[in-house]
Amino acid sequence: MKAILFDAYGTLLDVGSVRAKAEFIFPGQGAALSALWRDKQLQYSWLRTLAGRYADFWQVTEDSLVFAAAALKLDLTAEKRDRLMQAYLSLKAYPDVIAGLRSLRDAGIRLAFLSNLTERMLESAVASAGLDGQFAALLSTDRVRAYKPDPRAYQMGIDGLGLRREEIVFAAFGGWDAAGAKNFGYRTFWANRRALPVEALGARPDAIGETVTDLAGFALQS
Amino acid sequence: MKAILFDAYGTLLDVGSVRAKAEFIFPGQGAALSALWRDKQLQYSWLRTLAGRYADFWQVTEDSLVFAAAALKLDLTAEKRDRLMQAYLSLKAYPDVIAGLRSLRDAGIRLAFLSNLTERMLESAVASAGLDGQFAALLSTDRVRAYKPDPRAYQMGIDGLGLRREEIVFAAFGGWDAAGAKNFGYRTFWANRRALPVEALGARPDAIGETVTDLAGFALQS
Repeated sequence: MKAILFDAYGTLLDVGSVRAKAEFIFPGQGAALSALWRDKQLQYSWLRTLAGRYADFWQVTEDSLVFAAAALKLDLTAEKRDRLMQAYLSLKAYPDVIAGLRSLRDAGIRLAFLSNLTERMLESAVASAGLDGQFAALLSTDRVRAYKPDPRAYQMGIDGLGLRREEIVFAAFGGWDAAGAKNFGYRTFWANRRALPVEALGARPDAIGETVTDLAGFALQS
Repeated sequence: MKAILFDAYGTLLDVGSVRAKAEFIFPGQGAALSALWRDKQLQYSWLRTLAGRYADFWQVTEDSLVFAAAALKLDLTAEKRDRLMQAYLSLKAYPDVIAGLRSLRDAGIRLAFLSNLTERMLESAVASAGLDGQFAALLSTDRVRAYKPDPRAYQMGIDGLGLRREEIVFAAFGGWDAAGAKNFGYRTFWANRRALPVEALGARPDAIGETVTDLAGFALQS
């Protein structure tokens, strides 16, 4: 095991601040808006890949916000939309991330993102989360214009790191992403921070934990 | 305009009875279970098509029920699972369907299903809804092992009816399906029975209504 590929949102980056900003802008509606926005963001990434109608993740994020606000009958002015979008450029890391990543790097393991986020979104998130210099590569599926779980997206990890599939562990937050990575052939760790059941998609992750500390325990034993 | 392709659930067939059965089996949880089940059913169809891990819609429906019950911490015995699955084989048509379809057939328009359901599920649903003999074809995407909005699924309508794309109207319940059909190139009617906003997927349906009566109004003017 030589490298770990990380999903971004939920695995290392806490999107809880998006909810807080949504609540500040639309009092009483922050939880509903941020949850529907996030659901639609994923749904649109899948639907556009399936239909062969790619748009980058910044666009998908804005489109899903527009839909979510309309569904909740919120008056999303251009100014409110822009303030909400900015929340995705200024995320923080979970408390367990810095120490967990350090133990992995100290063991000589290369770390990289493999994410649906555009390169700009990834760079902003890494900087705002205080994770500069930790990663060997920031791999954005924007380069192949296909979102996970399309195999073209997962293949980027092998190509980007120049390693064999079995030398890589994939760490995912979404149960669907863990299933996709496992189906693709990566050894897979599911950072199941919300204590959800395993997705019934025909592929169980190799290990399930909650934090990057748990991931380090799994990876350093492997 | 020579033919109309129908999506099944929501457009002609009312899945409200699934919720009622879920409520009967899990009192107080029917709405939550049937909503999560339905969400996951769609999600799994998209994720399996994207990942190249096809399973038929009966399997996807059972898998999504298993996940939804686990997420809600419900004790889904094999017997309860089977009773819930049977609900999808005994659906009823919406009240506007019989008269709406008759006016279309009287005008010489061919009617067909183009649906993710397996052929067995489609045949059962047509029989239980009292719609035998109304359709020129029951086209199941199971034949191409790819779910909508994959273009292979929409292409079945052209191939199955032997018509040109512009001779066909596609009638969808899901906003995502209406966007997919429009992106594929069908003239599209969105049966927006839940009064939702248009999905922000880059393709607006040609017409939006609620019932099959509204669809007939659109189709017979076209």
